[in-house]
Amino acid sequence: MASKAIAIVAGVGPGTGASVARKFAAAYPVVLMARNPSNYESLVEEINKSGGKAMGISTDVSSPEDMKKAFGQIEQEYKGAPIAAAVFNASGRFVRKPLLDMSVEDIGASWEVSCKGAFLFAQHTLPSLLKHAEDSSAKYPPTLIFTGATASVKANALMSSFATAKFAMRALSTSIAKEFAPKGVHVAHAVIDGVIDIPRTKEWLKDMPPEAKIGADDIAETYWNLHLQSKRCFTNEIDIRPMLEKW
Amino acid sequence: MASKAIAIVAGVGPGTGASVARKFAAAYPVVLMARNPSNYESLVEEINKSGGKAMGISTDVSSPEDMKKAFGQIEQEYKGAPIAAAVFNASGRFVRKPLLDMSVEDIGASWEVSCKGAFLFAQHTLPSLLKHAEDSSAKYPPTLIFTGATASVKANALMSSFATAKFAMRALSTSIAKEFAPKGVHVAHAVIDGVIDIPRTKEWLKDMPPEAKIGADDIAETYWNLHLQSKRCFTNEIDIRPMLEKW
Amino acid sequence: MASKAIAIVAGVGPGTGASVARKFAAAYPVVLMARNPSNYESLVEEINKSGGKAMGISTDVSSPEDMKKAFGQIEQEYKGAPIAAAVFNASGRFVRKPLLDMSVEDIGASWEVSCKGAFLFAQHTLPSLLKHAEDSSAKYPPTLIFTGATASVKANALMSSFATAKFAMRALSTSIAKEFAPKGVHVAHAVIDGVIDIPRTKEWLKDMPPEAKIGADDIAETYWNLHLQSKRCFTNEIDIRPMLEKW
Amino acid sequence: MASKAIAIVAGVGPGTGASVARKFAAAYPVVLMARNPSNYESLVEEINKSGGKAMGISTDVSSPEDMKKAFGQIEQEYKGAPIAAAVFNASGRFVRKPLLDMSVEDIGASWEVSCKGAFLFAQHTLPSLLKHAEDSSAKYPPTLIFTGATASVKANALMSSFATAKFAMRALSTSIAKEFAPKGVHVAHAVIDGVIDIPRTKEWLKDMPPEAKIGADDIAETYWNLHLQSKRCFTNEIDIRPMLEKW
Repeated sequence: MASKAIAIVAGVGPGTGASVARKFAAAYPVVLMARNPSNYESLVEEINKSGGKAMGISTDVSSPEDMKKAFGQIEQEYKGAPIAAAVFNASGRFVRKPLLDMSVEDIGASWEVSCKGAFLFAQHTLPSLLKHAEDSSAKYPPTLIFTGATASVKANALMSSFATAKFAMRALSTSIAKEFAPKGVHVAHAVIDGVIDIPRTKEWLKDMPPEAKIGADDIAETYWNLHLQSKRCFTNEIDIRPMLEKW
Repeated sequence: MASKAIAIVAGVGPGTGASVARKFAAAYPVVLMARNPSNYESLVEEINKSGGKAMGISTDVSSPEDMKKAFGQIEQEYKGAPIAAAVFNASGRFVRKPLLDMSVEDIGASWEVSCKGAFLFAQHTLPSLLKHAEDSSAKYPPTLIFTGATASVKANALMSSFATAKFAMRALSTSIAKEFAPKGVHVAHAVIDGVIDIPRTKEWLKDMPPEAKIGADDIAETYWNLHLQSKRCFTNEIDIRPMLEKW
Repeated sequence: MASKAIAIVAGVGPGTGASVARKFAAAYPVVLMARNPSNYESLVEEINKSGGKAMGISTDVSSPEDMKKAFGQIEQEYKGAPIAAAVFNASGRFVRKPLLDMSVEDIGASWEVSCKGAFLFAQHTLPSLLKHAEDSSAKYPPTLIFTGATASVKANALMSSFATAKFAMRALSTSIAKEFAPKGVHVAHAVIDGVIDIPRTKEWLKDMPPEAKIGADDIAETYWNLHLQSKRCFTNEIDIRPMLEKW
Repeated sequence: MASKAIAIVAGVGPGTGASVARKFAAAYPVVLMARNPSNYESLVEEINKSGGKAMGISTDVSSPEDMKKAFGQIEQEYKGAPIAAAVFNASGRFVRKPLLDMSVEDIGASWEVSCKGAFLFAQHTLPSLLKHAEDSSAKYPPTLIFTGATASVKANALMSSFATAKFAMRALSTSIAKEFAPKGVHVAHAVIDGVIDIPRTKEWLKDMPPEAKIGADDIAETYWNLHLQSKRCFTNEIDIRPMLEKW
């Protein structure tokens, strides 16, 4: 009998990651990854108390060693479990700086997470996503989602640190989609084009109505709906913006 | 008290249009438009028999007079009703021809439906979509969806008839989205990048598994999920392809 | 012996068209097309007086009859001459209007010139461009250039009239490029992303330095350089903006 | 009096880099950078013998230390010289591999050169490019060109190593263009979409006519023409392909 499939969310903070975790926890045991345990501890508790099943893992997605260890823990907990959904929502440090003021670290910092981290996440999840694709009892095609941003498609002045990393992640997502779709894995890239309404952005756009920001729970709904898509209807890229966004 | 909102689908044939009509009929009275009544008659009957409410209108979406008359009929039937969802799924005749073999009619035929027809459809539906946006009892933001194709983003050799029209429709969709999103209307453009599994394409890719074609019902699910998106999470463009598509 | 190749510029006004005509007149007899003879008369005189050779033809590029007549005149003047370069620089009337205020004429006006006109121009010039491609004494590959705009790639609010037409023209250009490049015709689309410095825009950006506008002669230089590209180096799309443009 | 401006080409091998160096050497003293001196030695000699002026520097563009040393050498040789043109043509090692067979090194190798190297090159050249922008005797606006590839805009299966790096470089180029164009530096990104005819590709497409490959000298012509563009006509992106390319 096939083990029960799980979902994994990397980059869980108080915003999109938490909403996505809550949403997918209604259907699957979820694994939450964040560098800082304080980012997932209360959420793990909340999910476990409300009838779901969650575990948190402290890991730096850009570290091959950390990731190996993290997925070892998952294997220990969910031996041989296929992955129904894997969401890469981590974002690295980035600077908004004139090019001549940037350091070598600045150009690489964002890439470490958005490209190398996304690559490591894909490598660790794809074998189990493929396993789910072959499981005839699977309800929905296994889904691998990458959270992008405006900077995934627009490279503005002073934004080279973030944009180079996000353009790279978008390329990674597309390349993986083309390689793994024929094997049944649904890969999608979301261009989150606007400010997400999270504690950190509380003071932003504060004179505007709520529709000026993107709802984190709403993103989670959209990600869930991507997961529901059948093998005969894969969406590989969507954009998301609030109704009051200028674009 | 607000009239009950309706949904309108233009371009109902045996494929996407019918699936979309069926899906939205579960929530709204639906109006089905097609040039040829045989394209909607049995579907109208089916919906009405199974507890939904449907009416069919024979109209040429590219004709201002026809469209005026059609929307007059809708007004008569559903006086003052807001529109919850409007889906433009019509596609005109197009040719696949060397440029030097094309006639002036050839370059315009597809545009007549995909751009002028889409424009007329938008003009006739937007006032009632706006009405729905202002209705505080509305469950979901009013949604205007345009069905695009591979040719909306790729202009291949011999495909200028179709691609010029589909590129134009995509521009129309984006321009409308930018004008009407701040007023609460969710406008989305779907790039259907693959062969849809409909009677007309039965012989295509017949040596391939079902996952080589897009399911019409699956498109309808995705359109419905676009409709469910909140004002804090509008997707303006999605692509759709089957898992076995090369792209 | 091969007839001397000619160049044709459609859409000659006091801006880009005139500059392009002057530039290409240094190498080829040029045919200038405009709806209004006052747009080319003095330029034709200027070119003919300064050692070049020019003829003007009053034509509406969107009229199949006019275009047939115009190319009949060219054939009469330059019997069997190959075309070395053909530049489509015409732009139709367009409106900047809320969608609900637009007429059916508004949505079609710009398309008439930018898509139908461009199509007719391509059909009339391609046979002679192909002839030049086969002429082993031809100095440069025959070149067909379409002048696009910001609206060729961005469809802003209120701009659907212009953007639908320009998106369509871009699709036309790409489709033609893919069909005719293998036959030796170099097709290029220029995205002119900024205000061109012409009499009509004199009052625009007047508090800004000259580098806030695009120079018409500079566009002509760039078009000429596209023409010089060899068969082993075709550019199919370029963007052009002034150094002070925000984009 | 202003020092004579120089040109710098990074990534000189037997193909594009050499052609670009030769072309720009007709106007400026040139500095050629390559990891392996054998890549530039004979070319330096050739240029110096034929009346130009060239120096070669062995450097790893992805190494901050190497680059600092290299630009120290340039400063020593051409004290305070503005840079008229800087061309980044280097490309790193990349693999064509299934994602699950890739190592962490594989995903980063190409980025090291195409993004970090391009960033270092930009940081080292921009101060002197800006100096040229302020020099009223400068003939053409200072130009910074990045050589991209098909993978800069298309991320195919098995190509994530190369595509993530090239997408990143394209973002870098655009971000720099937006920051530095207003200061007078012309930044351009070239999408080289096809096989370049160089010794290494001799056996590729060997049954096809020469027009199936891109000529390195032809790319150099196009780069030179980008350099000639005025401040009122900056092209920020061009594509280049041979006439027989499918795209």
